[in-house]
Amino acid sequence: MPTINPARLIGDLQQLRRFGAHGDGVVRLALSAIDVESRRWLVQRMNEAGLDARIDGVGSVFGRSRKPGPALVIGSHTDTQPTGGWLDGAMGVIFGLEIARAFAESNDTAGLAVDVASWMDEEGTFSGFLGSRSFIGEDVEEAIAGATNREGQRLSDVLQAAGIAGAPRARFEPGRHVAYLEPHIEQGGRLEAEGKKIGVVTTIVGIREMRVTFLGQRNHAGTTPMAIRKDAGAALIAFAQRLDAAFRAIARSETVWTIGRIDLDPGSLSIVPGKAEMLLQFRDADPTILVRMEAALADLVAAADRAGPVRVSLADADLPVEPTAMDARLQEHVAAAAEAEAPGQWIRMPSGAGHDAQVIAQRLPCAMLFVPSIGGVSHDFTEDTGTDDIVLGCRVAAAAALGILRSYA
Amino acid sequence: MPTINPARLIGDLQQLRRFGAHGDGVVRLALSAIDVESRRWLVQRMNEAGLDARIDGVGSVFGRSRKPGPALVIGSHTDTQPTGGWLDGAMGVIFGLEIARAFAESNDTAGLAVDVASWMDEEGTFSGFLGSRSFIGEDVEEAIAGATNREGQRLSDVLQAAGIAGAPRARFEPGRHVAYLEPHIEQGGRLEAEGKKIGVVTTIVGIREMRVTFLGQRNHAGTTPMAIRKDAGAALIAFAQRLDAAFRAIARSETVWTIGRIDLDPGSLSIVPGKAEMLLQFRDADPTILVRMEAALADLVAAADRAGPVRVSLADADLPVEPTAMDARLQEHVAAAAEAEAPGQWIRMPSGAGHDAQVIAQRLPCAMLFVPSIGGVSHDFTEDTGTDDIVLGCRVAAAAALGILRSYA
Repeated sequence: MPTINPARLIGDLQQLRRFGAHGDGVVRLALSAIDVESRRWLVQRMNEAGLDARIDGVGSVFGRSRKPGPALVIGSHTDTQPTGGWLDGAMGVIFGLEIARAFAESNDTAGLAVDVASWMDEEGTFSGFLGSRSFIGEDVEEAIAGATNREGQRLSDVLQAAGIAGAPRARFEPGRHVAYLEPHIEQGGRLEAEGKKIGVVTTIVGIREMRVTFLGQRNHAGTTPMAIRKDAGAALIAFAQRLDAAFRAIARSETVWTIGRIDLDPGSLSIVPGKAEMLLQFRDADPTILVRMEAALADLVAAADRAGPVRVSLADADLPVEPTAMDARLQEHVAAAAEAEAPGQWIRMPSGAGHDAQVIAQRLPCAMLFVPSIGGVSHDFTEDTGTDDIVLGCRVAAAAALGILRSYA
Repeated sequence: MPTINPARLIGDLQQLRRFGAHGDGVVRLALSAIDVESRRWLVQRMNEAGLDARIDGVGSVFGRSRKPGPALVIGSHTDTQPTGGWLDGAMGVIFGLEIARAFAESNDTAGLAVDVASWMDEEGTFSGFLGSRSFIGEDVEEAIAGATNREGQRLSDVLQAAGIAGAPRARFEPGRHVAYLEPHIEQGGRLEAEGKKIGVVTTIVGIREMRVTFLGQRNHAGTTPMAIRKDAGAALIAFAQRLDAAFRAIARSETVWTIGRIDLDPGSLSIVPGKAEMLLQFRDADPTILVRMEAALADLVAAADRAGPVRVSLADADLPVEPTAMDARLQEHVAAAAEAEAPGQWIRMPSGAGHDAQVIAQRLPCAMLFVPSIGGVSHDFTEDTGTDDIVLGCRVAAAAALGILRSYA
């Protein structure tokens, strides 16, 4: 049985944290100078672990085992949000590295193949999930040619400048790659609230992102009587209240919806807003719930538009993301590992956040496991997980990896 | 009886419109190059009318009658909003010019003193009401030293560069100046809706401008269950609905309130807003209504803050403006003039917008009269008033001016 080395595991996580450290948090945007530097460090660390590692042509770090398959890919991402935590993504990659080392060090597992991946740009600095999309064979040339970051840098230029553009790209190898395992922080507060240590992910939720636009009449806020106003902002507020009630009637306890942005135009104290927009997102693991929410939203938009006097319209703010189920058989391996390492301290749960596993699931059976996030916080410098929880999570991941690989032997 | 010359009146309005013309509208921000150019034209036009005119030390154009007092000041402003109409302010100034000319041309009024003013920066490009504040003797040195426009230009630099800074300032002359008359477009839709031609202004409304701030917890919009969220944006929406209901219970038909701006922080689709702010304005001519609205707002803020989980707080977004009553005796002169020139076609009404008259009323009895705004539109390129309504408004203003000046004789 392979043995996780807690000091080595935490040591590598702390070393990786130094690249882009910002207080307790990390700023390591995909393909920034510090991100590229961290990838060079990661390649070296993987090579030291006996893997055949390199930065691929889109910037992913892929450490290929020198053992013959069947191979399990373990990984996640090492790029961060603009105000990122130290474990979001990074933990899953270093788990893969540590598991590869532990397997190599144990006679009964030294022959098993564990490939380790840090997929490029999971967070969407240039083009979300670029690395995992490239890995499964999606044509990413258009994305590379067209994508820019917030500063207007072109992805193609940045890949060129980093000397990455010409490198071979890591690719899914049919016959060799049999499964993908992604350990990750929960990014929510459910494990903590229920006093559990491990989440066995059932599904990655589907996402809808919509823009609701209200067109009224811009007017002087002092001289326009309430009775004749066409106040787009007031219409938005009334609509948002009705939408909340409608969604509550459809929602399960896991369903979430968020109005993340509101813009009133022109945004002046003295002017009745002539235009208003809200950006709305909702998520659920059950596609039928998403369809019902979409229908309720469309009905409310049509009713509000008919009622007037403000015109209301609906548009997609982004492409819909359908729910992605994790592989049932792999889930059982993760559950068995969790029960062995943390008896009674695990639950099955959906992932409310998106992950590379939802991309890779198009080609490979996938599994995910979660460790608790302190206070449920993520995408923030204060994101953290207890050391014992990290180590336990890695042990569960290692046991799950062993179970999975043995099942393919 | 003096006779208004419609062709000359409309001709001057059209000439002034050319300075900063932008389609049907006008962009003539206070102390912009085109604004200063228009002031030179206005000085020349006033001098041709027999007034002793100049640009004063804060940029106001003041055309002083060469006749001895008692003098009536007629005026308004010729600066515009960033997307201004051609009559907002400009009409009142050109009415003053035309009335001064008409009075000079008629034997029975040639001895009466009409001073004509275009007050600097009514619209607040640098410092709102600068010209009228300077005229009544308010110390504006601090405002001049500290004010900047949106582009960061300093008022003091701009006055210097325009060669204005050193000029003498027009000042209220006790003993000579007996009253101020400001004709203006309504900027609302009431005259049009009621089929009337003239509004005799009773009061300029008071204004309250407040900022309501909601502090919750920024969180991942996918992984944070609804039940444990502290969504500042959702709290703002629920609050805005309650506020609207509370204000409706207090409001009279003239009371207005507007949420002109909403900001959710960080304003991302995927993040539960941790902070939200709304800018709120409400106006009424009755100070007791304003006090009741303030109290209702404060109560709702306190109740929402107590209820949690989002913290709610209240702050002034600007200094309160108290309602300003127009002089009762002057109102009767305007009403008598309206009844003579447009029998049955006038109403008494408050002004929902702010005007230089509210500043000047601190030192001089003031009156205002309104002409209809087509569609109630103002602060927009499409702002307009029918030619007949403009000419009628000028006739009423001339008759009111005559009545006022004769009452002081």
